[in-house]
Parts: sequence; C-alpha cells; structure tokens
Amino acid sequence: MLNPFFKNKGPFNFSEIIKFLNIKQNTSSKDIKILDIKDLSTSKKEEITFFHSKKYGDIAKKTNASFCLTTDALKNKLPKSCTPIVVDNVLVSTAKITSLFYPDSINDDFDETARSINDTKFKDIVNFGNNVLIGSNVSIGNNCKIGHNTIIEKNVVIGDDCYIGSNNIIRNTLVKNNVKILDNCIIGKHGFGFFPIKNKNMRYPHIGIVLIEDNCEIGCGATIDRGSMSNTIIGKNTYLDNQIHIAHNVKIGENSIIAGQVGIAGSSIIGRNVKIGGQAGISGHLSIGNNVEIGGGSGVIRNIPDNTKVMGYPAKNIREFLRDNKW
Amino acid sequence: MLNPFFKNKGPFNFSEIIKFLNIKQNTSSKDIKILDIKDLSTSKKEEITFFHSKKYGDIAKKTNASFCLTTDALKNKLPKSCTPIVVDNVLVSTAKITSLFYPDSINDDFDETARSINDTKFKDIVNFGNNVLIGSNVSIGNNCKIGHNTIIEKNVVIGDDCYIGSNNIIRNTLVKNNVKILDNCIIGKHGFGFFPIKNKNMRYPHIGIVLIEDNCEIGCGATIDRGSMSNTIIGKNTYLDNQIHIAHNVKIGENSIIAGQVGIAGSSIIGRNVKIGGQAGISGHLSIGNNVEIGGGSGVIRNIPDNTKVMGYPAKNIREFLRDNKW
Amino acid sequence: MLNPFFKNKGPFNFSEIIKFLNIKQNTSSKDIKILDIKDLSTSKKEEITFFHSKKYGDIAKKTNASFCLTTDALKNKLPKSCTPIVVDNVLVSTAKITSLFYPDSINDDFDETARSINDTKFKDIVNFGNNVLIGSNVSIGNNCKIGHNTIIEKNVVIGDDCYIGSNNIIRNTLVKNNVKILDNCIIGKHGFGFFPIKNKNMRYPHIGIVLIEDNCEIGCGATIDRGSMSNTIIGKNTYLDNQIHIAHNVKIGENSIIAGQVGIAGSSIIGRNVKIGGQAGISGHLSIGNNVEIGGGSGVIRNIPDNTKVMGYPAKNIREFLRDNKW
Repeated sequence: MLNPFFKNKGPFNFSEIIKFLNIKQNTSSKDIKILDIKDLSTSKKEEITFFHSKKYGDIAKKTNASFCLTTDALKNKLPKSCTPIVVDNVLVSTAKITSLFYPDSINDDFDETARSINDTKFKDIVNFGNNVLIGSNVSIGNNCKIGHNTIIEKNVVIGDDCYIGSNNIIRNTLVKNNVKILDNCIIGKHGFGFFPIKNKNMRYPHIGIVLIEDNCEIGCGATIDRGSMSNTIIGKNTYLDNQIHIAHNVKIGENSIIAGQVGIAGSSIIGRNVKIGGQAGISGHLSIGNNVEIGGGSGVIRNIPDNTKVMGYPAKNIREFLRDNKW
Repeated sequence: MLNPFFKNKGPFNFSEIIKFLNIKQNTSSKDIKILDIKDLSTSKKEEITFFHSKKYGDIAKKTNASFCLTTDALKNKLPKSCTPIVVDNVLVSTAKITSLFYPDSINDDFDETARSINDTKFKDIVNFGNNVLIGSNVSIGNNCKIGHNTIIEKNVVIGDDCYIGSNNIIRNTLVKNNVKILDNCIIGKHGFGFFPIKNKNMRYPHIGIVLIEDNCEIGCGATIDRGSMSNTIIGKNTYLDNQIHIAHNVKIGENSIIAGQVGIAGSSIIGRNVKIGGQAGISGHLSIGNNVEIGGGSGVIRNIPDNTKVMGYPAKNIREFLRDNKW
Repeated sequence: MLNPFFKNKGPFNFSEIIKFLNIKQNTSSKDIKILDIKDLSTSKKEEITFFHSKKYGDIAKKTNASFCLTTDALKNKLPKSCTPIVVDNVLVSTAKITSLFYPDSINDDFDETARSINDTKFKDIVNFGNNVLIGSNVSIGNNCKIGHNTIIEKNVVIGDDCYIGSNNIIRNTLVKNNVKILDNCIIGKHGFGFFPIKNKNMRYPHIGIVLIEDNCEIGCGATIDRGSMSNTIIGKNTYLDNQIHIAHNVKIGENSIIAGQVGIAGSSIIGRNVKIGGQAGISGHLSIGNNVEIGGGSGVIRNIPDNTKVMGYPAKNIREFLRDNKW
C-alpha cells in the first residue's frame, strides 16, 4: 500500500510495547525490534499483528507476523513463529499500538504546511482560483484545474487532467487521472471509528488512505473518509452525485453510479457496475455484488449477490418489494 | 427562457452536423444553416430538435423545427417541413449536438473571471464580507448583503433586498427579490446526467438554469442543480431547510415548505403549498400536486394528486399508513 | 441561561407593547415597564410571557410573569398577579414581541465585525490556518487550534483544548473544553421556524443558543441550529459523524453516538448513552430515553422509553422489526 501520509515512528523494542500496554509478559524477546503493525494476512516477520475473533482463525494460522495481540482463548491457533501477547481487549490494544507506530493517524489537525499556491511550484502549471492552499510535498499532474478556496493538504497526489472545484478539502488521498471532484467535498479525513468510553471516547487510528481511480466524478458536498487499517477506494469511472457519505474502508468497484444523498457505512464492499438510487443507505461490513441495482431510499442490511435488483427497507428483491407494495 | 449563461456557438451548416455525428445522409440541405437546438415544442424554423419516444408523437407532429434527430421507426410522424436525421441513439446524438452549440454547458469549471468584490462596481452598493468573489457581468440589485467567502459566478443575476450568506457558490442562476440563501450552498451546477459508458461516461450538457423566485429562503448546505433542457425552479415564498438536494429540472411551486435533508430527484414537478417532512425523498419524473403533505422520511415513488397527505416508503395515503402501522 | 448573543432592547412600556400588537386594552398599566419576554416557567415579575394551549395550564397557574399573551378562553387560568393580554394568535404575537425585545434574533446576517485573526489578540495564543475570521468579543481558551477559512462569529465562547477544523461557521454558540468540530460545519444559525403566510412567511425569532459540552466531536458538514426559546444542547462526550442535521431546541444527552446523515427534527430530547445508526431520522417534539439504540435508516415517529432497541420506519421494537422482516 503506497502511503506517504503517516510516518512509521518505529521500530519499537518488544519491551516498549509491553510497557506501553501496561501488561506483564515473561519472555526472552524483550530486546527484539518490532518494525510495524499490520493485519493478519499482510504482516511479516518482525512485525506485530492482531487476532480478535475466531472467524479469522484460518488466516491466523498462516500469519507471518512475529507477534500477535490476542486473547488467551485464541492464542493457540497462532503458528509457533508468532509470539502471542495476551490482552484484555484486542481491538483497544491494537489501537494503542497502532497509535504508537503512527501517532499522526489519530487526529486530523488542519495542515499547517499549507500555503498559497502562488508560493509553490504549481503556480505556473496548474490553472487555479483564488485562495487555493497547497501543503508540503503535494504532487499535481499535468493539465489540472483547482477552484477557489480549495485546500490540498500535505503529501496528496493528484494525477493528470483532473478538475478539483472550489471549497474542497483533500487530505490523505491519491487521486488518479481525469478525475473530477466538484465543490465542497471533504475527502480523506479519519472515519467515525472509536471505542466508546464513558466521559471520554478513545479514537481509533486511521492509517488507510482514500484512493480515487481514473475517470471518477465526485459530486458536491461529499464526505469520503479514509480507511482505518485498509484503504477507502472509489473504482475507475464511478460517478457520485451530491451529498454522499462514504465511510472508512469502503471499496466501490468500477463503472458504478451512486445518486444523491446515499450513505455507505464502514467497511462495506460494493461491486462493479452497481447502481444505487438516491438516499439509499448501506449498513457496514456488507458485500454488494457486481451489477446490483439498489432502488432509491432503500436500506440495505444484508449482503446482496451479483446481478440482483433490490428495493425497500430492509431492502429485498425488487419483485418481492413490488408484490408487497401493490396499489 | 432568459439565459445569459451558455453562449450559442451556432449557426452550424447541416453538413457540419452530419459530419459531427459521423453519419451519412443524402440531402440537398447541406448548406442550410441551423441556428439552435431545442425541444419539440419550443423549436422553430431553422432549428434542430429531437424525438426519441412515441409518447411524444402528438407533439412531434406539430413541431416547427426544420430538422429532427430521431429513429427510423419514428421519422414518419414528423411533419413534412421537418427533415428527419436518423441516428442510432437519439439522446446521445442530442447530447452531442447540444454540446456542439453550447460547449460551455458540459463542464462546471470554476469561474476564472471571478475577482474580489473590492475590485468591482459592487464595492459601494453591496454590504459584503471578507474574501467575496464576483464573476464578470454579474448583476446585483439594491440593498443586498453577501457574506464571507461567497462566490457569485459570471452572469448571475441577483435582485433587490437579497441576503446571500457565507461560503456559497452560485452559478448559472437568476435570483429574484427578497431571497435569502443561507450558508454553504452550491446552486446552479450541472445535474447528475450522463450516459453510462464503460471506462468513461459521457456527460449530458445542461443548458438550463436555476431560477429562485421572490421571497424564498434556501437553508444551509443546499445543492440545487440547474436544468438540462429546461430550468430548475424554486417558486415564490418557498422555504427550504438545511442539507436539501434539488436535482436538475425540478420545479417547486410557490408557498411550499421543505424540511431538512429532503432530496428531490431529477425532473419532478412539485405543486403549490406543498409540505415535505424531513429526510423524505421523491423519485425522478414524478408529479406532486398542490397542497400535498408528505410525511418525514417518506419515499415517494409515484405521482400524488392534489390535496393528499402521504407517508411511508413507498409513500401511501396517510390513513392507510396509519392503519398498516398501528401500535 | 448565559446568552451574550442577543441584546435585549427593552424595557418597553406596556402601552408600547399594546400599540405594537395593534390591539386595544383598557388598563391602568400603560406606563409600567416590561423588562423581558420568557416562557411561563422562567419568567418573573415585570416580564411578559405567553400561554397558548391548555396543556400548559398547570404551569400557567404558577407563572411569576406580570403579563401574559393568551386567548380569551385561557386567560382565567392565570394568577391574579399576571395581567392577560388577549390576542388572536398567541404564537404570532409572541414572535412579534420577542422580535421587539430581540431584533437581532431573527436574521442571521453574516458577522460584519469578523476580521482576520491576525488582527486580534488570538494571534499569539491560538494555532490557526489561513483566512480565519474572528468576530468581536469572541473568547477562546488555551491550547486551541482553528483551521483554514473558519469563521468564529461575535460573542462565541470556545473553551480550552478545542480543535476547530477548516471551513466552519460558528455563531451564537458556547463550546466547552476539549471539543472537536471537524470541517464544513454550520453551527448556531436560527432554526427552520416561521409562520407560513401566503406570499411572505414570517420568521420566528430564535433567542436560544447552541451549547456543546466537554469532549464532544462534531463531524464534517454538520448543521446544528440554535434554539428558539430554549437552547440546543449536545451533551458531554457525545460524538456526531458526518452530514448530520440537528434542528432547533434539540437536546442530546451525554455519551451518545450518532452515525452519518442522521437528522433530528426540532425540540426532540435524546437521552444519555443513545446510539443512532446512519441515516436515521427522528421527528420533532419526541422524547428518546436513555440507553436507546436506533437502527440505521429508521424513522422514529413516537417516544421511545429507556433501554429500548428500535428499528424500521416507523421505528418499532427491534424484535418486532426482525419478526416482520424475515428472510
């Protein structure tokens, strides 16, 4: 995953990790360096991962990580090459260790490096409006336009032939070629992920990014949140209408069409050639197949197989919906 | 239709039109000039129109246009004064020819003519905030206020006694008198209209405008898209709450009240004295009568006659809704 | 209620009030000064209140107000210490008298006192972005950050350790400590309250404020309207996701979690530890208990008792919802 956005502050010694979590563990590993934190399938030797639910048992068995945050009940499923670190709450501990490696990934403070585009190298190669701000280390391709009052924060990459309208804020995002982002969008902030704790919630780090593929159009007023452990992706040639909310880790396939005011909750995967009518909502952690059509106003709360038309709340097959709602 | 926004680049010779569409047609008309493109009922002599569905047969029979984009099956319904131009896809060809006449109507690039209001003639007659931008040829009436960071793009007309708040972008719009537009609105961008084509969709031109009649109030965060072939209209004394989306070609009658987060899909016509509760959605191409009340959260997917109260998803008569949802 | 936002232009003589309402009343009180207008329970001697529905009869009996706008049918329920002023429409007359005392509370004109933060005392104590505007008499605590293009309007109070992102407009609002307001929010504008009058509606004054308690987070694109006669309150440690609309007078308890695109209509009261799923809507004037969970997409149209899970439109007990929607 190309991710120029969050600096890895590691490595950390195993003993530092243990101390940070405020737990005790007898081990000879205390001086071993841990390089990074990743999920079960992508983590490698000298890295730490996490394993919190038995449904990931098959992946856990094959992890290459050297360390794993897990529970007493699950620790025996890990391979011998992986030292379990038993904690009370795996996800909270994972958040803590992720914050240790990537402290910048928790808060989305405004980009203090952003300065007038007139004071940057883009002055002569981008066609831009008034009051445009560009952060440090931004990359912008050929033949791009950026409207008034837009802020492109540090490290953002924008491809060729892109149109970015006015009043946008773009951070932690890779924009490919020939993409249009209309006005008033907020792209790349962290998702709505945190551990509810009475009196003071604990924010989950978001080390993923937003990736917008070639030929996409993002309508006015969109909020597209970046991923927590994976990326939020808008597939090639997918068009979004106005006032759409795409939560963290969502992945939308190519050639899809999403009408106004749709909301897609965290971690749902949407296929190719999908059409979603206005104001429809899709719950989190769902899988929506290819060539699916979702009627306007629908509330989707279960997976939908390929080539299916659904409508209603809860959304069901459109033939069933029409039969149940005759007039 | 008063429309100072999109310049007609015509006339074009008939032979140019044919060449642009990449079709062949034996005709003696090749040097005839074509002045404009309009719909079947408003087009006149020396203009071109389009006819793509037999449901418009009665209007087609009476068209005054000299040329018409149509199909082999429909061409015989046209009067003798109208030369048919047979194409594979009437709507795509219409989009192409409209783009030829009105190339500015496809993309909504930010207004490069916009400059600080301090450098315009409005400096002394408008009460304005910081960082206000005004495009060329804008007209603003007496006793108006414009808040911080608002952009009024080229050719926009604003009447007397209007209040335009902060962070708005207004383009391709006529605002009558005593209108309030609160903060963060995007008014007059093109609608979500395009022909889905794998790998690269084709945008439909939008030569309509947004017309906001006297005494309206538009709440914060509205997106009101301009029309494609007709205008988007907000009738006199109609009030919109926050976060409302009005799609292209929608027409709302006078004295209507629309609560927060409502969405109205493209080309629907809403009557007078209509009340729409929060988060309700109205599908496209519907006709909602006068004095209709639509309950909050409703999803309207069929026409509603005058003087009717509806609620539910799909919305039905409120008595029926209440009977079906006893508790 | 601490409210530095709307200046009381009183006192007014009783005879001025009568004249302003264009009514006649025989009384010896014409030179008595009236200091303020408040609701039945909070008003005191030398103040005016209003009483428009018999359901407030018990409170009316005990009011300390010296004068009360009411109807002929209700006037006898008032105590002898309170002089009734009989009017045709109590709420319209109340709006008129409120406007007389608080003329600033009707329109939300942009803050003309706002100027660059560089020209204020906050230059050296706040960490701020480009184009930040601060109105007169604003108070900001220690260790705060304010992002680009944000406007903090006159008299707003912000506590310690707050993060205010970019492109926000904050007015008529008290923000306590350790609050995060992300980007693109409009907080503190008047609610969608007015008397529908053909050809020209009459706006209701909004003399309430928005109060955001400690440790809250407000997501991107929120609109939070201030109260009319009471305040809009976001309780301690409550988190709001993106694109949420909170209407006037709403009060949300502490430790609540509200997902994206939720809308809460005017005057509803939400308890503590409440979870509301994405796109859910709550009608006005409802009471939602503590520890309630409302499923995503729900439409809540009746009160919900403590410790209840609901889902659906209209929302019902989740067991009932699941039973009725088997698959």
